[in-house]
Amino acid sequence: MEDPFVVVGADAAGLSAASKCRRVDPDREVIVFEKGRWISYAYCGMPYFIEGRIEQLSDLLSLSPAEADERGIDLRRGHEVTAVDPEASTVTVETDDGTIEQPYSDLLVATGGRATTGPFDVRDLNGAFTLHNMDAAAAIDAYIATPEQYDDDRIADTPADRERVTHNAEQPAPETAAIVGGGYVGVEMAEALRGRGLDVHLFQRSGHVLPPFGQAVADRVETELESEGVHVHTDTPVTELVGDDRIEAISYEGGRQPVNLAIVGVGIDPNTELVADTDIEFGVGGAIATDDHGRTNLPNVYAAGDCATARHTVTGEPTWMPLGLTANRGGRAIGSTVAGDPEPVGEIAGTAVVKAFDLECARVGLVDADAAREAGFEPVRKTITAGSRSGYYPGGAETDVTLVADRESGRLLGGSIVGADRAAVRINTLATALESGLTVAEVERLDLAYAPPFSPVWDPVLVAAKVLRGAM
Amino acid sequence: MEDPFVVVGADAAGLSAASKCRRVDPDREVIVFEKGRWISYAYCGMPYFIEGRIEQLSDLLSLSPAEADERGIDLRRGHEVTAVDPEASTVTVETDDGTIEQPYSDLLVATGGRATTGPFDVRDLNGAFTLHNMDAAAAIDAYIATPEQYDDDRIADTPADRERVTHNAEQPAPETAAIVGGGYVGVEMAEALRGRGLDVHLFQRSGHVLPPFGQAVADRVETELESEGVHVHTDTPVTELVGDDRIEAISYEGGRQPVNLAIVGVGIDPNTELVADTDIEFGVGGAIATDDHGRTNLPNVYAAGDCATARHTVTGEPTWMPLGLTANRGGRAIGSTVAGDPEPVGEIAGTAVVKAFDLECARVGLVDADAAREAGFEPVRKTITAGSRSGYYPGGAETDVTLVADRESGRLLGGSIVGADRAAVRINTLATALESGLTVAEVERLDLAYAPPFSPVWDPVLVAAKVLRGAM
Repeated sequence: MEDPFVVVGADAAGLSAASKCRRVDPDREVIVFEKGRWISYAYCGMPYFIEGRIEQLSDLLSLSPAEADERGIDLRRGHEVTAVDPEASTVTVETDDGTIEQPYSDLLVATGGRATTGPFDVRDLNGAFTLHNMDAAAAIDAYIATPEQYDDDRIADTPADRERVTHNAEQPAPETAAIVGGGYVGVEMAEALRGRGLDVHLFQRSGHVLPPFGQAVADRVETELESEGVHVHTDTPVTELVGDDRIEAISYEGGRQPVNLAIVGVGIDPNTELVADTDIEFGVGGAIATDDHGRTNLPNVYAAGDCATARHTVTGEPTWMPLGLTANRGGRAIGSTVAGDPEPVGEIAGTAVVKAFDLECARVGLVDADAAREAGFEPVRKTITAGSRSGYYPGGAETDVTLVADRESGRLLGGSIVGADRAAVRINTLATALESGLTVAEVERLDLAYAPPFSPVWDPVLVAAKVLRGAM
Repeated sequence: MEDPFVVVGADAAGLSAASKCRRVDPDREVIVFEKGRWISYAYCGMPYFIEGRIEQLSDLLSLSPAEADERGIDLRRGHEVTAVDPEASTVTVETDDGTIEQPYSDLLVATGGRATTGPFDVRDLNGAFTLHNMDAAAAIDAYIATPEQYDDDRIADTPADRERVTHNAEQPAPETAAIVGGGYVGVEMAEALRGRGLDVHLFQRSGHVLPPFGQAVADRVETELESEGVHVHTDTPVTELVGDDRIEAISYEGGRQPVNLAIVGVGIDPNTELVADTDIEFGVGGAIATDDHGRTNLPNVYAAGDCATARHTVTGEPTWMPLGLTANRGGRAIGSTVAGDPEPVGEIAGTAVVKAFDLECARVGLVDADAAREAGFEPVRKTITAGSRSGYYPGGAETDVTLVADRESGRLLGGSIVGADRAAVRINTLATALESGLTVAEVERLDLAYAPPFSPVWDPVLVAAKVLRGAM
C-alpha cells in the first residue's frame, strides 16, 4: 500500500470514488479527509425533514462511518485539508492533534459547493438561516417548533450540533416566514414551511420562480404555490434582513414584510478555496476545470461533484451544474479510473426535477432560447398542453411540455414538463433523446408507452414534438 | 376531385390517415368505408368501462361521424368492402342499397385485427364472450348487472346493439367468472371483474401471465392478482366451455371450475380476408407486408394498423405487433404520404404497458432471451430491484427492472419494468435508448432525473444498467 488515493470531502462524489476504487482494487489504500462531522448526507432530503415528512434526520445519512470502514476506506473526520502541493504530491491536513503532510498517488478534490447568501449575513441573526448543511436543517427544524414541542429524538444518532439545536429550540416558534430565492430549494422549502403551518412569503428577484425550468413551468408553479397559500413575490429583490437579535422583517424594493423566520438561499458556489493558490485551472462558474475522465490540469489530481465542471450533452462545452447524480457518477467513474479501469465521468444534460406541492416539474438541456442562441443554435420553441392519460380515464392531469430545437439541424436541444400526474419521470425520455442527439422528427416517431391509466395514445412528449416540428 | 384516397376501416389507422390527408391536402377526396356502425373507438378502454371506472360507453369514442364530416372526410358506415381489384384500381363495396364499384387513386387497408377464441365458439352460449368490440363490451357490462340494476344510460349516444344488450341484461347476474387467456386484456379484465364484485379465475395456458413481459414482471403480477383475490391458474390450458344455453363451467386439464361468465381472449389475428385473393404479400403473423412508408407490394395500396407489419427497432426486421400507437402513427404517416408529403411510418420497439391493480407493468424490445438469440444476438440479461424514490422519502415502491443486452456489441436489446410507483412511464427511457441504439454503458451514463419524491439518485434503470454491464 504505497500509492494512496487521497480524497478531500466525504460526500457524494468523494465517497463514491473511494468506494468504487476499493471495489475495483481491494488492495489500494484509500484515505478520505472530511473537515466536518457529517459524511454522505442527502442534501436534497433536507426540506422534507424540515417539513416533517421524514421523521429522523439520520434517515438522510446514506453511508455511516462504520460502513465506510467495512469498505476498507480510511475515513478521517475532523480533518481539514488546507493545502495541496502538486509538486510534492502531498496535502496538508489540519487535525485536532496538529498538522500532517499526507502524500498522494492520486488526489480527488471533492469539496462540494456552498450555499450563497448574497449580501445577507445570516450568522448573527436568530431566525435567519441558509439551508447550508445538516446542522442548518436541524437548527431550522428546532427553531420552527415551540420550545415545549421540540423533540430532540429527531436528531438522534447524528452528529448534529446540539448546542445550536438547543439554542434554536428555545426560541419562540415563528408564525411567518420569508424565503429569499425561488430556486428549487426555495420552492421545496415553501412547501415544507406550509406543511409546518407557517404563513410563507417567497421572494424571487427575477420575473419567475425556478428560472432554469422556463416560463411554462414557472407559470404553473406560481399558480400552484398561491393556491397552497404561499405568497409569491416575483420581480422583488430583497434588500435587507431587518432585526437586531432576531429577524423581524424582510425589506424589499417598495415594501417590508414582517417575519420571524427567514431562509436565505440565493444560490450555490463551488467550494474551491483549497486549490485557489495552486496552478489548477478553473472553468465555468469558478468551478475546477476537468476533462472527460474528471482529470484537472494538475498531474494525478481529479475533481468531481459540485466543485467541478462537466461536459454538457447538448453544447459539448464545459458547464457547471451542481446536481446529485453528477456528483455520484463522476466520483464513481474517477474511483474506477484511479483503480486502473478508466471510465468516463459522462456528460450532463442538466436534467432536474422538483416537486411543488402536487405539481411535478422537470427540465433538461437548453430550455432558454437565449442560452440556445449563445451556444450557436437557432432555437425554435413550442409549449403544448396535453392530458397525462386517455381522456376518458379518471385521474389524468394537464401536462405542459415545452420543447426547444435547432431550426437548421432539427436537433432537439431541451425541454420542460410540468403536471400533476407522472410528469417528472417523463423528462427521462427527453434526457435520453438529448444524449442520443435525436432530431425532433425522430422524437415524434418514438414508440412510447400507451395505456389509458398512464398515457394517451400520443404521449404528451409526442404531441409536443409534432407541434414543434410543424413550426420548423 | 378525381383521385380519391379510399380507406377501408374507420378506426385508429384509417381515420388517422383520412384526417391527416385532408389536413395536408384539403382538396383531396377522401372516402372511408366502414362495414359496421362504430368508428374510432378506444379498444384499450373497454375493460375500464366494464369495470365501471368509466361511466359512459360513449366516452370511448374519440371521433364522431360529425367530426369526421367536419374534417371533410366522406365517411360511409354500413359499407363493407368485399373485394379489391388492383388491376382496375377499384374496390367492391356492399351496401344496404346494393353493390358499388369505387375507383381509388390510393387505397389504405386498415381492417384491423380480430380477437381469436382458439377452439372455443362463444357465439351461442349465454355468458360466454370475447372482448371483440364495443358491442361485446356493452353486452358484458349488461350481463354482469342484475336485471333490476342494469341502466342503459351507460350506452346512451352510441350505436350499441340494443337487442343484444337487452338480452344480456335480462340474464341472471353472474357470481363467478373465468377469463381464458392471461395476456394484457386478460389481466385488465381480471381487475375489471373484481371491481364488479365477481369471483375471478384467470386461466393461462403457459407458465406465466403476460408472456411478452417476461418472468420478472409475471412473478410480480401473479402475486398482485392473487393478493387482490384473483385465482390464477397458470400452466392450465382450458379444454372446454361447458354449458347448453348458458355457460356452466370451464373444463381444463385436471379439473373443472363452475362459472357463469367466461371471457375468452386467446389472442388477436390480423384481419386480412379482404385482400386474401389478391397478389398482396403477407408477412409475419399473417399480416400484410409493408415497407417503411406503409406501402404494400401492390401499386398505390397501403396497409396500417393491426392488419399490417412494421419494422422492429431492435432487429430491423418486419414484425407484427397490434398496438394503438402503431396504428395511429402509421395511419397518420400514410395520410401525409398519399397527400404528397412523404412520411415514414416509423419503427416499433414493442413498447407496451399494462396496469394490474396497483402494479404498473412495462416492456420494450427483446425481453425474451430466446427471441434475442433467434434475432442473432447473444443476450445477457439481469433483473434488479431498486426503490422508486429516495429510501427516506415515503411512498416509494420496489421496482424491478430487467435489461437485456448483446454481449458482443454491448447494445441494449430490451427490458421490462414493474412496480407500484411510476414504473410504467419509465419504460420510455428504454424505448428511446433502443431507438437510438445505445449500449448498456451509454444507458448507465444517462443523466436521468433525481429528486427524492420521484427517483433515487440512481434511477432503477441506471442501477440495472450498472449491474448488467458488470455481467458482460
